[in-house]
Amino acid sequence: MVPGHEIIGIVNKIGSKVGRYKIGDKVGVGCFADSCRKCEACLKGLEQYCFEGPNLTYNALEKDGKTPTQGGYSEKIVVDENYVLSIPNNIPSDQAAPLLCAGITMYSPLMHWNAGPGKKVGIMGLGGLGHIGIKIADALGAEVTVLSHSLRKQEDGKRLGADNFYATSDPQTFKKLKRSFDLIINTISIEIDWDRYLNLLALDGTMVLVGVPEKKSPLGFAALGGGRRSIAGSSIGGIRETQEMLNFCSKHNISSDIECIPIQQVNEAYQRVVNSDVRYRFVIDNKSISN
Amino acid sequence: MVPGHEIIGIVNKIGSKVGRYKIGDKVGVGCFADSCRKCEACLKGLEQYCFEGPNLTYNALEKDGKTPTQGGYSEKIVVDENYVLSIPNNIPSDQAAPLLCAGITMYSPLMHWNAGPGKKVGIMGLGGLGHIGIKIADALGAEVTVLSHSLRKQEDGKRLGADNFYATSDPQTFKKLKRSFDLIINTISIEIDWDRYLNLLALDGTMVLVGVPEKKSPLGFAALGGGRRSIAGSSIGGIRETQEMLNFCSKHNISSDIECIPIQQVNEAYQRVVNSDVRYRFVIDNKSISN
Repeated sequence: MVPGHEIIGIVNKIGSKVGRYKIGDKVGVGCFADSCRKCEACLKGLEQYCFEGPNLTYNALEKDGKTPTQGGYSEKIVVDENYVLSIPNNIPSDQAAPLLCAGITMYSPLMHWNAGPGKKVGIMGLGGLGHIGIKIADALGAEVTVLSHSLRKQEDGKRLGADNFYATSDPQTFKKLKRSFDLIINTISIEIDWDRYLNLLALDGTMVLVGVPEKKSPLGFAALGGGRRSIAGSSIGGIRETQEMLNFCSKHNISSDIECIPIQQVNEAYQRVVNSDVRYRFVIDNKSISN
Repeated sequence: MVPGHEIIGIVNKIGSKVGRYKIGDKVGVGCFADSCRKCEACLKGLEQYCFEGPNLTYNALEKDGKTPTQGGYSEKIVVDENYVLSIPNNIPSDQAAPLLCAGITMYSPLMHWNAGPGKKVGIMGLGGLGHIGIKIADALGAEVTVLSHSLRKQEDGKRLGADNFYATSDPQTFKKLKRSFDLIINTISIEIDWDRYLNLLALDGTMVLVGVPEKKSPLGFAALGGGRRSIAGSSIGGIRETQEMLNFCSKHNISSDIECIPIQQVNEAYQRVVNSDVRYRFVIDNKSISN
């Protein structure tokens, strides 16, 4: 299995029917490289929810049902133009790459649940997803609060655009922020006490899960029913919305904070990700593959 | 503790400042008889979510914080006119009473989540709540499907207005109805496999909990994230909306299917409720109190 799903490159060959891109264009490929194109989700431009499952960019199969998809840790990738994004020139390629997963994963729910002026948005977890979420929510005009385990990254949070920063290890946080948020984007992937966090939502507030916890956590009625609150799930975004996100990031000078490494350092980088020691995304320079 | 929170009676005395009701009016009192009147929820007419907690009609305290509220198993009750509902004359009192809790509990989420023509609504559980939910969702023009443990009540479901009826004890139900519903109102109060039921929701569908399970059930990301689905909680309704619901029921000739009993049979009735042997609500005739 070869991974890689936040891929940027330059078009070096096109098929005879390709109309959208030309040789030399800076383009990107995200988490999926095809989908059924016929179901309700695909027809709505929500290919990420394709009823047959989108054809993921790696560790999956192409539409023929047998050819493995091989991801972006490679010198070349062949993708249908309909699943290719145009990367704005003012975003450096290495800083643009994480927008194709982390960026759209945050942009899509922020847009869908109307983050903007007058809205209070909480971002749970300040990692690869969270740090782009802060930037986008801030650019949308929302009041942004980071809910991080400790205050260790507070300075970063403020620099990225957060208005407020609270430690969830401090029980006072849950008293102070009760009924605060219109929207919480939950990027963390560990078990949590749903009610404790749901009580931070205002009347009619929504917590959107974008992180995938390994284990389920028990959910009851109390915090949901006490304020017509919701828990929702959101996965990346469709092609149209991903392009919209890239254009939005271009306009607002948003990109990912990254460390760019040669592929030879990938094992060390992996260990640092496991240790939460990355601010905030590793990007592999594929030029190093041929070294 | 004296219960009773679906109360109908005739006004027999009014205070000097009462302007909304006069002696002889048919009125009702629901689950709460007062609230703080100052918080965001109260100001929005959503007194059921009052930030200080609404003053429940029984087993609670009045606003003085010490006088117990004593419910409706009584010959008289004194309530501020702002927390009293006007009962339309074309609904018999005994059939109107359950609308004040069961009715509004179903009406509020059906309205809030836009049940109506072109929408597919699932009602989980056919009991006191479910049977009124079918009637209201049908009157709103939605396509109504009952999800009941068995097919035992199928005939009733169809008579009440359901278009479809499925047994959740049949595993085929979960295959057939995958991605079916825009909205599911979950009235059941036992532990459930969230993912199994959430997968019955269409893209962007919502399951609204109105039943209060004794135990929590484990929730993960998969079914929510697989279709931008939501789980929400809803509690009864505000005074304004409860009046709206009563007027809606009057217009559409909706009332509760009941068995009216003298209070002397209350213990037997309780046991029958525990055994799910009621179609679909017991109502106590308070004239029997003085017998």
